[in-house]
Amino acid sequence: MATGNINVSVENIFPLIKKFLYSDHEIFLRELISNATDATLKLKHLARIGEAKVEIGNPKIEIKINKENKTLHIIDQGVGMTQEEVKKYINEVAFSGAEEFLEKYKDSDAKDTGIIGHFGLGFYSAFMVANKVEIFTKSWKDEPAAHWTCEGTTEFSLEEHDKKERGTEIVLHINEGEEEFLEDHKINELLTKYNKFMPVPIKFGTKEKELPKAEDAKEDEEPKKVTVDNIINNPNPAWTKQPTDLKEEDYNSFYRELYPMQFEEPLFHIHLNVDYPFNLTGILYFPKMTQDMSIQKDKIQLYQNQVFVTDNVEGIVPEFLTMLRGVIDSPDIPLNVSRSYLQADGAVKKISNYITKKVADKLKSIFKNSREDFEKKWNDIKVVIEYGMLTDEKFFEKADKFALYPTTENKFFTYDELVEQIKDKQTDKNDKLVILYASNAEEQHSYIETAKEKGYEILLLDSPIVSHLIQKIETAKENKISFVRVDSDHIDNLISKDEEVISKLSDEEKEQLKETFEKYITKEKYTVQMEAVDSKQAPLMITEPEFMRRMKEMQQTGGGGMFGMGNMPEMYNLIVNANHEMMSEILAEKDEAKKEEIIKQSLDLALLSKGLLKGEALTKFINRSYSLIK
Amino acid sequence: MATGNINVSVENIFPLIKKFLYSDHEIFLRELISNATDATLKLKHLARIGEAKVEIGNPKIEIKINKENKTLHIIDQGVGMTQEEVKKYINEVAFSGAEEFLEKYKDSDAKDTGIIGHFGLGFYSAFMVANKVEIFTKSWKDEPAAHWTCEGTTEFSLEEHDKKERGTEIVLHINEGEEEFLEDHKINELLTKYNKFMPVPIKFGTKEKELPKAEDAKEDEEPKKVTVDNIINNPNPAWTKQPTDLKEEDYNSFYRELYPMQFEEPLFHIHLNVDYPFNLTGILYFPKMTQDMSIQKDKIQLYQNQVFVTDNVEGIVPEFLTMLRGVIDSPDIPLNVSRSYLQADGAVKKISNYITKKVADKLKSIFKNSREDFEKKWNDIKVVIEYGMLTDEKFFEKADKFALYPTTENKFFTYDELVEQIKDKQTDKNDKLVILYASNAEEQHSYIETAKEKGYEILLLDSPIVSHLIQKIETAKENKISFVRVDSDHIDNLISKDEEVISKLSDEEKEQLKETFEKYITKEKYTVQMEAVDSKQAPLMITEPEFMRRMKEMQQTGGGGMFGMGNMPEMYNLIVNANHEMMSEILAEKDEAKKEEIIKQSLDLALLSKGLLKGEALTKFINRSYSLIK
Repeated sequence: MATGNINVSVENIFPLIKKFLYSDHEIFLRELISNATDATLKLKHLARIGEAKVEIGNPKIEIKINKENKTLHIIDQGVGMTQEEVKKYINEVAFSGAEEFLEKYKDSDAKDTGIIGHFGLGFYSAFMVANKVEIFTKSWKDEPAAHWTCEGTTEFSLEEHDKKERGTEIVLHINEGEEEFLEDHKINELLTKYNKFMPVPIKFGTKEKELPKAEDAKEDEEPKKVTVDNIINNPNPAWTKQPTDLKEEDYNSFYRELYPMQFEEPLFHIHLNVDYPFNLTGILYFPKMTQDMSIQKDKIQLYQNQVFVTDNVEGIVPEFLTMLRGVIDSPDIPLNVSRSYLQADGAVKKISNYITKKVADKLKSIFKNSREDFEKKWNDIKVVIEYGMLTDEKFFEKADKFALYPTTENKFFTYDELVEQIKDKQTDKNDKLVILYASNAEEQHSYIETAKEKGYEILLLDSPIVSHLIQKIETAKENKISFVRVDSDHIDNLISKDEEVISKLSDEEKEQLKETFEKYITKEKYTVQMEAVDSKQAPLMITEPEFMRRMKEMQQTGGGGMFGMGNMPEMYNLIVNANHEMMSEILAEKDEAKKEEIIKQSLDLALLSKGLLKGEALTKFINRSYSLIK
Repeated sequence: MATGNINVSVENIFPLIKKFLYSDHEIFLRELISNATDATLKLKHLARIGEAKVEIGNPKIEIKINKENKTLHIIDQGVGMTQEEVKKYINEVAFSGAEEFLEKYKDSDAKDTGIIGHFGLGFYSAFMVANKVEIFTKSWKDEPAAHWTCEGTTEFSLEEHDKKERGTEIVLHINEGEEEFLEDHKINELLTKYNKFMPVPIKFGTKEKELPKAEDAKEDEEPKKVTVDNIINNPNPAWTKQPTDLKEEDYNSFYRELYPMQFEEPLFHIHLNVDYPFNLTGILYFPKMTQDMSIQKDKIQLYQNQVFVTDNVEGIVPEFLTMLRGVIDSPDIPLNVSRSYLQADGAVKKISNYITKKVADKLKSIFKNSREDFEKKWNDIKVVIEYGMLTDEKFFEKADKFALYPTTENKFFTYDELVEQIKDKQTDKNDKLVILYASNAEEQHSYIETAKEKGYEILLLDSPIVSHLIQKIETAKENKISFVRVDSDHIDNLISKDEEVISKLSDEEKEQLKETFEKYITKEKYTVQMEAVDSKQAPLMITEPEFMRRMKEMQQTGGGGMFGMGNMPEMYNLIVNANHEMMSEILAEKDEAKKEEIIKQSLDLALLSKGLLKGEALTKFINRSYSLIK
């Protein structure tokens, strides 16, 4: 048996690293600036622990474009490299200097320096956009500078150089076809996207700045201007600070930094800050939500050590919270892996649970400490909370204490308060508590009014997922309660009590009336139901049974409901108030044409009340009504 | 100056290749089956050109699970490898045997064999799920078999083996945590996703098959069953065949193969087949479209040489065609690159243009050869065509000849036919052709009826993007035409002619009436407009001017329109028919209460006709109307 070592063929793998390791060309700049940042942070660390006896000053990173030579320059003032180090870190692909540095200095808190590098491959991403790359580098150690050149093959040249300033300059000779990376606006766009919050100041060009006027300046004196460095990043973004060091206004201004095109203020923020068992910092914001959940997703930005990674946090943030905004920064989240892998990863699971818990705690504290404010914001945040209650069992338990149920009168109850409020009037004869609700205050106006007159509370539940949510709440409350929409039955049947109303009409008269109405409606769609109720209530009423309607809605909003229900035809009841005086009049009317007109007109009014009179039928009704005015 | 060669450090790059080259663990199986397929196709090629004098038979690939040993086996009957070849192809990472093979046999049409391998890295993806990988392989050449083992480090062992059958068996010792890849249902899922149409039969287990009954079998005799190989793939999918060899039913049954959960038949198909200047085959289907464009996207599957790659064809297929379904197979599409790169790629641009042209040609041919059928399908396909006309100039030009304009009477005109049909009646006094349309036949019913009575044609344009499209058509036709919605003005103003109607009322009476109506409506929302028109027309009418409404709609459906228009308040006109007899009655009415009732009731009827009477106002109207019946 022979044994041996697997060999990686450089000629073959080099094009792969250059072209296919990253799916996006533009990340080369992020990678090179990450290297420059590491070099700067390393030097700071060495100076702090006394190993490098050098004057640090305020090191920055500079990006320069030379249009004439078609070159892009990334210049840092960090550790630099000796010739030997170039050989070791550059010529040996996939030898990460950052990991070695962290290992070497692990006893001196090096891991807190924020060093980014990981695989030592980032540098080679330069060849995705450049056909020739040069390195000019001078180490902090007392050794001559080095100049390295490579034209995209596996061959390089290395020589001494007379560079005097400490640090490294990378020069990219930009490829034909990639000239966009020589445009100011493009580089500015990339810097803003990837490097906006990196920890070392990044200079890109200069800008003019007005000096404050001297106290003795004349009124009409022009303000003096000076040219200053144009620093594109904020090296100390809010999430890297302690919550105690930040005011409300700091959080709001950081929100505007993150979303400059967003004019509305966030509703509130949640500061994340945990060291163990994983490292995570960040700030999440609740923006004003609209009903359309899909368009608001994917606004949370994921960073690793202040380097932007992605705005797709699927799998890391629980789905119902992807509607929030803000920043998460964690070196513990594995990158470039599939969603199923993320979901199975223990650390990611813990992060996800931690975020859920922090959000629930924050909501609870606002509810407790400023209820009025919480009620005002409810309609803007309810989509998230309701969706969370539906999809996350732990969140449901927490939210049950602060989730609000608004009424059509604009009162807000918690679940427990609601039960307390309605238990006397809204318990039916079978001892079940009936929670009445409307989904649209305009469309269900007449039904709401009728229920109000009875002294009932009517909730206004208008989220698209509400049928799923009430189904879940009924189950959670062991079916001791039931949600019933106000237009699902006649008011006396919504909450049935043991009250008897005497019928003015005989059974024969009722049967006769029933047959008369059946002549004028579509039997397949409407079931005529004779009820002897209060004569002051509407003569006719269309209702849609709760169970069927809810199943259909659940089917339509995805999942749940019984199989096939979504495609069932719409079924309504036509409730005839047998005690209404109109019924006696219809029975008494001898003129058939007149009788038909009365029936048609009142049927149309009942349909109109339920929003069912449309098209040709509506036009006919309008014409008939004009003639009735005369 | 020193020169030298860049070195790739095996120890460092190996974990990268193993873990991070692919974002999805599960693709290891696709990679190994691709290798097995290549090995099989190579042997077939060598046999065909007479270099390998062996009996080929019907080679297949077999996938086996051994739950006890926690191993997964991929077995082929292809070329196999000698010990020397294992050293060359396996021990040297990133040395692709497939490319070398294609180079060597380029004169013998090897490129038509469908060989897949590209970078020689696929094999190592096995280590994403396995901690130990073994290869048992016997070359078609007369040499002993080899047995290679590697436990995930860079060290391997290689020895002779007594394997007798030609071909290669890969054995994966599945990692802890990856046991799902030992489950039948998981492997079945992966095979179905990635390998359903690969060119060599793939066996996964066995199944029972009923034999046809013998002719002399008794009635109650049980059918005989035999155990046969369970072949999971169709090695000759429809798109690899010539259109002339396929019938309509073949296309439909391939559609069911692609979308087994889809019960509706496709409306029609487009067979793509081009060799030069790029290689592309495929079949696209037009499914029934619904209004919601977003949910139907991303159903087109991209293959390369019959291996599934992705169902995200963004950037390859023009956006308006991503609503189609089907398969595209092209080795010329670069993978794993960004969308902006794809869009800049010349070959991809040509592919995208070719697809657009083929789709337009097919639509034109159906329109020409079976107009009736085309009209029937129009409502199911119009979203795609209209969206294409809006976003693709070349497609607009082609589609202008076959795009249909349906009327509320269910007639269908092309643009030219429509102009011919309406030019006599619908040219206004400024010589502009006015195309009337409705967006909803139910909601605009009364307006449609009024226009019909004048003998006008009313189009029914109900796509969500219609306001953008008509804007574009007006511009394309140099503004010699204008689209006007039926409810945007009084019928006599929609298409203004030089006709004079004598007013029954004096100017003073009109002014008095105007003031009366203004008392009962919200001045900020409604402008009262007195018109002396036909006395038989409705007494009151609410209209919404075309320009404002269209701008608002365009804003709401994204882009276009003037800045800020989308948030403008709704503005309506209340048109009072001064010649209607009701107006004289109102003027004559002395009873103020009666007068108020008439005005309120008729105003409500006008609002109802335009769908503007809601909530409390509707409830009040209904109650008032019940009392009017009595």
